[in-house]
Amino acid sequence: MTVLFAVAGWSPEHWVAAYREADPERAVVVAPELGDPAAIRYALAWKPPAGLLAGLPNLEVIFSLGAGVDHLLGDPTLPDLPLVRIVDPDLTRRMTDWVVLQALMHLRAQRTYDRQQRERRWAQHPYPTATDVRVGIMGFGVLGRAAARTLAAIGFDVAGWSRTPPADATGFPVFSGEAGLGDFLGRTDILVVLLPLTPETRGILGRPLFERLARDCALGGPVLINAGRGGLQVEADIVAAIGDGTLIGASLDVFATEPLPETSPLWADERVIITPHIAAESDPRALSRYVAGQIAAHERGEPLQNLVDRARGY
Amino acid sequence: MTVLFAVAGWSPEHWVAAYREADPERAVVVAPELGDPAAIRYALAWKPPAGLLAGLPNLEVIFSLGAGVDHLLGDPTLPDLPLVRIVDPDLTRRMTDWVVLQALMHLRAQRTYDRQQRERRWAQHPYPTATDVRVGIMGFGVLGRAAARTLAAIGFDVAGWSRTPPADATGFPVFSGEAGLGDFLGRTDILVVLLPLTPETRGILGRPLFERLARDCALGGPVLINAGRGGLQVEADIVAAIGDGTLIGASLDVFATEPLPETSPLWADERVIITPHIAAESDPRALSRYVAGQIAAHERGEPLQNLVDRARGY
Repeated sequence: MTVLFAVAGWSPEHWVAAYREADPERAVVVAPELGDPAAIRYALAWKPPAGLLAGLPNLEVIFSLGAGVDHLLGDPTLPDLPLVRIVDPDLTRRMTDWVVLQALMHLRAQRTYDRQQRERRWAQHPYPTATDVRVGIMGFGVLGRAAARTLAAIGFDVAGWSRTPPADATGFPVFSGEAGLGDFLGRTDILVVLLPLTPETRGILGRPLFERLARDCALGGPVLINAGRGGLQVEADIVAAIGDGTLIGASLDVFATEPLPETSPLWADERVIITPHIAAESDPRALSRYVAGQIAAHERGEPLQNLVDRARGY
Repeated sequence: MTVLFAVAGWSPEHWVAAYREADPERAVVVAPELGDPAAIRYALAWKPPAGLLAGLPNLEVIFSLGAGVDHLLGDPTLPDLPLVRIVDPDLTRRMTDWVVLQALMHLRAQRTYDRQQRERRWAQHPYPTATDVRVGIMGFGVLGRAAARTLAAIGFDVAGWSRTPPADATGFPVFSGEAGLGDFLGRTDILVVLLPLTPETRGILGRPLFERLARDCALGGPVLINAGRGGLQVEADIVAAIGDGTLIGASLDVFATEPLPETSPLWADERVIITPHIAAESDPRALSRYVAGQIAAHERGEPLQNLVDRARGY
């Protein structure tokens, strides 16, 4: 009943320590040191080496160490086992905080006041209230709906868009599919993107989409906020759209290449707010409790929660 | 039944236009052109010239063109008439937006990421969640409670402090009086100040108060957010407290002297976020509807709302 950590790009030490605290009885191994591969039943994975998971004969469940699973589905040898994504109230709360922070920075022209402060200049500018501003959230799952609730509590006029109509009532207007996309974009002043990265969504955030956003904006023009995946966005199009006023601002937490290369022109424009993929960093302790809880339920014969539909890609 | 606008420091033209839209039948005059002083029944005032209001024989009600009334109570000749302060849902919402924006900027180290962006540097820093951070709101009236509700929706652990215990349940722990101040400050990581300026509160935001704030902060130290009045704060103490770590950050929208002089050291520290008294700019249209509605009710013989208690000063 061993748990395997299989990650690339960073050291999982603090994750392993947190997991041991959450599930002290369980054997834990860290790739590439697998011990007895036949003992491994559960894998906690982030961009695992291709083929690694396919070589574990008794693997039962794969847990993605992040809200998205594109980093796993890219491996053609990924075994056909239950794949669980992170739905963690702590991660959800952090994402909401970041989205709300960014929406308010654009609403209240914080970057303008930041520049004025550096210039020691006192000048007041009129601004709309949140009630005058329409936020559209693309990707209306757990993260999108949580952000929607807080943005609505602040007064923003919120709607969602999802690939397929939601099965249950969300409390918000939800547009769906390609058929609903035009109306959704046409009523959106601030576009918040929390989409998964799939073959359908790759590169979706480019000039053709930006040109469909609302032009009658209380903010003077539309704003893009992306905390989904860098692969969703065409960064040259964002730079050009900000340059010619198709967008008046952006907040980006994710990038096609991370870390964002020093040569990227995105860094230089104060209308673009860059954060280094910190919108919803997982808390290892909270996430370990979530995984340990799911493993315990699975071993009691209960169903796993938040399973990925591989055909959809999320 | 004429309405008088009496303001100093700015031109009331857009206010007068908005008022005429809200109350088209009424005669409106703008100081210093009073027309027939005996016709004036209502004054909408912001720092009116001393003595001006005392010279109006039939004045019935004075409306303050702002949430505070310290700008009126400083005039010893102010007639003893009902004094109404602004309680405007639009102004309240704007203040909440600003307070939430500033609290989140400190929570999520936005100024650190802003600097990294200018330096084209990618570095992630751990941060607490809102649930780990205690916000204390000094001044727990309409504005304070509205901010409290949204901060709590985001997850912050919120309490209030007011001079006297609130008459009605607020849904939050409320400390009061000098007796409650120590416990309140001792559990406060982010101090939000929405106090009125009175002889008791002038200069209250100084080193002795900062030293009573929580030291076991998830943010590493306490933060001051002041959107009340500049006269509440001792600016040299703020600079020194940020310098020696007694405070780790501040957001200030109000200043002892406005515009903030170019020579102020507050401009220069990136840990201090300066905005030019824009936290809750009144919307002339919303405010005109509020005043016109109160005048109409008064003329129907109904009581005025949001009267100032002159002995308290707010």
